[in-house]
Amino acid sequence: MKYILGSGSPRRKELLGMILPEFTVMPSRFDEDGMQRDGMDACQIVCALSQQKAKEVFARFREENPEREICVIGGDTIVVSPDGEVMGKPSSREDAARMLRQLSGSTHQVITAVTVMALSDGQVMEKVFPVSTDVTFYPLGETEIERYLDTGEPFDKAGSYGIQGYGGLLVERIAGDYNNVVGLPVARLMREMREMGLLA
Amino acid sequence: MKYILGSGSPRRKELLGMILPEFTVMPSRFDEDGMQRDGMDACQIVCALSQQKAKEVFARFREENPEREICVIGGDTIVVSPDGEVMGKPSSREDAARMLRQLSGSTHQVITAVTVMALSDGQVMEKVFPVSTDVTFYPLGETEIERYLDTGEPFDKAGSYGIQGYGGLLVERIAGDYNNVVGLPVARLMREMREMGLLA
Repeated sequence: MKYILGSGSPRRKELLGMILPEFTVMPSRFDEDGMQRDGMDACQIVCALSQQKAKEVFARFREENPEREICVIGGDTIVVSPDGEVMGKPSSREDAARMLRQLSGSTHQVITAVTVMALSDGQVMEKVFPVSTDVTFYPLGETEIERYLDTGEPFDKAGSYGIQGYGGLLVERIAGDYNNVVGLPVARLMREMREMGLLA
Repeated sequence: MKYILGSGSPRRKELLGMILPEFTVMPSRFDEDGMQRDGMDACQIVCALSQQKAKEVFARFREENPEREICVIGGDTIVVSPDGEVMGKPSSREDAARMLRQLSGSTHQVITAVTVMALSDGQVMEKVFPVSTDVTFYPLGETEIERYLDTGEPFDKAGSYGIQGYGGLLVERIAGDYNNVVGLPVARLMREMREMGLLA
């Protein structure tokens, strides 16, 4: 069985390495921005993104290796602000500051949707599951926000923070799975893959 | 101001590095096993341990450098099992297996007590605060326990697991501060030290 991580995130790569000794990284080429989102809630959006990304990688790999048994793991993470806004990556320093002000002193949700798509014994299997974690931020002053922006950490991250880095200093508490906030709920994924017969 | 971490834990050293660019590690020589614990609950025990450890380092450093302004940070972490047993480090592989069976499929508490003891402007300041995080384990089979023991990770850790390593695969969810489970609630510590005027 060949395992493929359909995401270029170094954090997901590190987490997946905890349960798989060997896998290939093949970032998805699915066009996120082109996806229809009308009438979908945050959880439906992130599930669809994760599924479409995995599907694209699965199809691309199969085209070149039609006989090979494969298992593609795709993941997508979004931050839902206390007001219900779906937060992606910030477009600028000012946008990042705006997001952090919105998260300050309150609780938001981080949802990662994982898709496992496999071809095993000639059968295609697919499973999509979302995992949600509540994250509560300390109240943040403008100085603290500016300092955090100066670390450079917010700019490639949904919601403008990374909990595993200096962003952890902004967080008072979480309720749920920690690695899910980092980008991959690997403990749950391990159990799902075992249940599907894709992991010993 | 000279900062001193009064603990030899590499995990605490890494976490403290997030808020202090420079500090000295000076593990405490306080004799834990000799400490009176009669009639104390888990939280009182860990607070006393953290305080006594910091005090010993503070006194030792001051003896040689009586004029120097210093700030000693001490920490101690315990795991309280669902039955209320205070779990330290395991004494053997069998002991580690026993602890993991006790934590399986239920919620326990991890309490880290932090002591900040400083000499600043000729004044001695001291603050001790405990932080508690609830950790819920997945139900663990014997195979999973044996596999985890084989990683070698449990043997130097209170409660026989490390959440930042493969132990994270055993955890379904937490409620509270994650870094507190790792060994130092650094986000809270930063705020306490600022309030004491010991950090900008």
